[in-house]
Amino acid sequence: MKTDIQIAQEAKMKHIKEVAECLGIVEDDLEFYGKYKAKFADSLWEKIEKRENGKLILVTAINPTPAGEGKTTTTVGLGQAFGKLGKKSVIALREPSLGPCFGVKGGAAGGGYAQVVPMEDLNLHFTGDFHAITSANNLLAALLDNHIQQGNFLNIDTRQIVWKRCLDMNDRVLRNIVVGLGKKTDGVVREDHFIITVASEIMAILCLAENMQDLKERLGRIIVAYDYEGMPVTAEQLNAVGSMAALLKDAIRPNLIQTLDNTPAIVHGGPFANIAHGCNSVRATKTALKLADYTITEAGFGADLGAEKFFDIKCRMAGLKPDAVVLVATVRALKYNGGVLKADLGEENVMALKKGIVNLEKHIENVQKYGVPCVVTLNRFVTDSDAELEFVKEFCEERGCEFALSEVWEKGGEGGIELAQKVIATLESKESCFQPIYEDQLSIKEKIEKISKEIYGAKEVSFDTMAIQAISKIESLGFGNMPVCMAKNQYSLSDDPTLLGRPTDFTIHIREVYVSAGAGFVVVITGTIMTMPGLPKQPAAERIDVNEEGVITGLF
Amino acid sequence: MKTDIQIAQEAKMKHIKEVAECLGIVEDDLEFYGKYKAKFADSLWEKIEKRENGKLILVTAINPTPAGEGKTTTTVGLGQAFGKLGKKSVIALREPSLGPCFGVKGGAAGGGYAQVVPMEDLNLHFTGDFHAITSANNLLAALLDNHIQQGNFLNIDTRQIVWKRCLDMNDRVLRNIVVGLGKKTDGVVREDHFIITVASEIMAILCLAENMQDLKERLGRIIVAYDYEGMPVTAEQLNAVGSMAALLKDAIRPNLIQTLDNTPAIVHGGPFANIAHGCNSVRATKTALKLADYTITEAGFGADLGAEKFFDIKCRMAGLKPDAVVLVATVRALKYNGGVLKADLGEENVMALKKGIVNLEKHIENVQKYGVPCVVTLNRFVTDSDAELEFVKEFCEERGCEFALSEVWEKGGEGGIELAQKVIATLESKESCFQPIYEDQLSIKEKIEKISKEIYGAKEVSFDTMAIQAISKIESLGFGNMPVCMAKNQYSLSDDPTLLGRPTDFTIHIREVYVSAGAGFVVVITGTIMTMPGLPKQPAAERIDVNEEGVITGLF
Repeated sequence: MKTDIQIAQEAKMKHIKEVAECLGIVEDDLEFYGKYKAKFADSLWEKIEKRENGKLILVTAINPTPAGEGKTTTTVGLGQAFGKLGKKSVIALREPSLGPCFGVKGGAAGGGYAQVVPMEDLNLHFTGDFHAITSANNLLAALLDNHIQQGNFLNIDTRQIVWKRCLDMNDRVLRNIVVGLGKKTDGVVREDHFIITVASEIMAILCLAENMQDLKERLGRIIVAYDYEGMPVTAEQLNAVGSMAALLKDAIRPNLIQTLDNTPAIVHGGPFANIAHGCNSVRATKTALKLADYTITEAGFGADLGAEKFFDIKCRMAGLKPDAVVLVATVRALKYNGGVLKADLGEENVMALKKGIVNLEKHIENVQKYGVPCVVTLNRFVTDSDAELEFVKEFCEERGCEFALSEVWEKGGEGGIELAQKVIATLESKESCFQPIYEDQLSIKEKIEKISKEIYGAKEVSFDTMAIQAISKIESLGFGNMPVCMAKNQYSLSDDPTLLGRPTDFTIHIREVYVSAGAGFVVVITGTIMTMPGLPKQPAAERIDVNEEGVITGLF
Repeated sequence: MKTDIQIAQEAKMKHIKEVAECLGIVEDDLEFYGKYKAKFADSLWEKIEKRENGKLILVTAINPTPAGEGKTTTTVGLGQAFGKLGKKSVIALREPSLGPCFGVKGGAAGGGYAQVVPMEDLNLHFTGDFHAITSANNLLAALLDNHIQQGNFLNIDTRQIVWKRCLDMNDRVLRNIVVGLGKKTDGVVREDHFIITVASEIMAILCLAENMQDLKERLGRIIVAYDYEGMPVTAEQLNAVGSMAALLKDAIRPNLIQTLDNTPAIVHGGPFANIAHGCNSVRATKTALKLADYTITEAGFGADLGAEKFFDIKCRMAGLKPDAVVLVATVRALKYNGGVLKADLGEENVMALKKGIVNLEKHIENVQKYGVPCVVTLNRFVTDSDAELEFVKEFCEERGCEFALSEVWEKGGEGGIELAQKVIATLESKESCFQPIYEDQLSIKEKIEKISKEIYGAKEVSFDTMAIQAISKIESLGFGNMPVCMAKNQYSLSDDPTLLGRPTDFTIHIREVYVSAGAGFVVVITGTIMTMPGLPKQPAAERIDVNEEGVITGLF
């Protein structure tokens, strides 16, 4: 069997200007990065902004399991399938991070015959967006520490610095460090922390900014520290905004690449899905909606985190109206939710499936709470039995959802035609009555409780003392009207990763709350959230190679 | 008066494919990065490698002073002047670092009407080469610390880790840090250090590698640490080579941009000129020699460091033969060397000029020791008097050097025509008998003494005990045949920055010696060398901005 990178390297890519031509984009509105990548010039938006929007389709999933669901693969394959049906479609994805690429995961560009290419470029530096974010993030940190070194006239309390340095790397020893050791000229000693670039608030800002002016305003609002009076110190006060924006000048322009069968894919931005909102950029999505009749996008993790934030943060801020949701599951993952061990997932087990399908049921109900029509798809595996597939199909249809099998991993666009047809049928027959699950004016506590109870299904929410104090401070500083960004483990609807299926009678424990004032949301942390991953015992980096001709191997 | 960035933004740039066409390069051999930047595809080298080389001209300077000499400006202007004379010329420069750009210096792309463009792109992320080097450097560091975390079967002594993390940023608090704090899962605690990206050994390697295979071999030889038996541990042993090479796959391809008047400029690589060799990449220089009749390149700092390393490291390793040297000085800088205060440099002072010109005299002698014909140029300032200019001219001609004034800052290529004509006359009348100043088989101590006495003019060389021990260890490990890379202050021929002019009777103090086994040289440190700069009280970052149309201001 061929690996993903082998399939990707056999792709017959078109020059990116031809891919753009299919969307009616002329060469003058593109900035090429080699033959197969381009950024949209700012001139493009001016030409298209008055057009009607196409349909917006979000692909999300049940809670992730070690069995794998294939959310990105489905997103890409669905886009390919629309193309096969002669429909004008664009895929809008997130950019992958270098960290996981060298860690456990390998590449992230779909899989099998549903991939975006060139996958090596996408997984390595791509068009440099993440490097630009890293630079802007670390320039702000350097300016902050330099301000303290040069006299600290802003009265910054070095025990209350909240801005962290970042690298696009899995590097655990940088989680907790002490900086500024040495002599007087080597800075002020303090505890510091590195995070991975995708966890930087600048990544979230870049993905939520409407344009350069909005970007600069958001950058200026970033809180880097608190002073000895407890008042926030911002990036604006450090005179850091212009330089950061200059570093991000190209990074805010969406990138165009293609799928294995030349469907256009806009790949732009990639914030964490826990301490940030986990969606590609607003600019990319808005551009896609103007260019195509169908925009297919995805959000991080399962629907409890990814779809919730897509709806309540991204769509709310950007004024987007999703028209349909595709909810991805696999028979194997549902059986895993029903208590089957990973090794036994290949055997038919309708009983376990019945037990585990409650996870899917809850996500269907959640999507319906937002008023968005839902289509369920099963990513088909050879081990799935007819009885199992039939059971899931009936289950979904009883709940008012269209259902389709997906075989895009094995067959590419052809394997997604049934799904694409069901999506089109849904779009034509059901109107989206989208609205966020909570309103801006609710208190932070009420917002957290609403999500925890209505989306997660929690019975209660408990708040640590520190969290209560933080909420009170955040509201007193005037940030109480912002949406909340829940950081919860992705494996369970609850905050306990071992509770699979559809847990009930559980409590969500709120441990920490802080404001990302530039991004424009209040981050709410349940459990322990890792913002700087580590490398595993056998890092993927050890098997990656490149030959004299520049051909890369070992990226999966 | 217009600023450099204003002049640069008014340039009538050609599409980079047209600039390449003038060199006979077809579009298929280019990878575009927008309209005004391109990388050479590997296919280009295959087409041109059999050609005869053009002439190689090195631009170097007297020891730098606060008065400014304009070495890069002269290099660019000379290239422009060759173009005006209808000669096929290419400029081969180093890429600037982000760090100084946000610190004191602002941009680095020449000045006035002798600049390479687009200057904003060049000074910010350019084609991502430095980001790729940063990533490769830090991947190696992460793999090293992960190896220790996962059991340390290579027996690495955490007190003897020599590989440092890097950022392309002036950030003093990262000079001396402690990493790995926290819990067991957060790594092993140890002292660590960040350097600026241009000081990474990977930068030196990229600039010296002939091709991908050579790059990989050099990366593999990097010594990251010593084990408890005192033996070196290499990047090869950490299985890091393939991944690092994959990250550098595009970065090893030279970049093409243009001057204000569309002369081709290959800008590639930029190692430090103290702990590394301070020249652009071998691949860039070799490509330039095949593409043009005249290749004009430069080296860092004054001729005692820059030209010495260009000759003894770069030309030695790459088998290059320089045909002429252009030695840049200014009347102001020579008077500064003669003891005039910076504020008084505008007044005529032939006595001080006579006193200070000994600095130029020593550099002329040094260049002649290498057997390379030398042309001296004065970057003209309005305050220079005729008597002063005449004095310098006669001084040079008495020493067998052609002399020309340069007015490229004010007049662009036109202002360099006299200099270009003198260079051509020199190339036509004088044969280069280039040979390095020392031979491979000399001991490390002998090499250091030869450079110190013959090039710097020192009377003696003293070695600290630690340096002697290090030399002995380096020779016992088999690295004794490598060239030495001297890290000395750039302001004086001695290791005391306050000794201007042509100091005599001084001693060079060798404090520290270590091997950069991948780059292939032994670094010899005199005095204190800063490998992570800091930001000044008023960082340039504070005045840089970008507007809604993406136009950048405040870069100088």
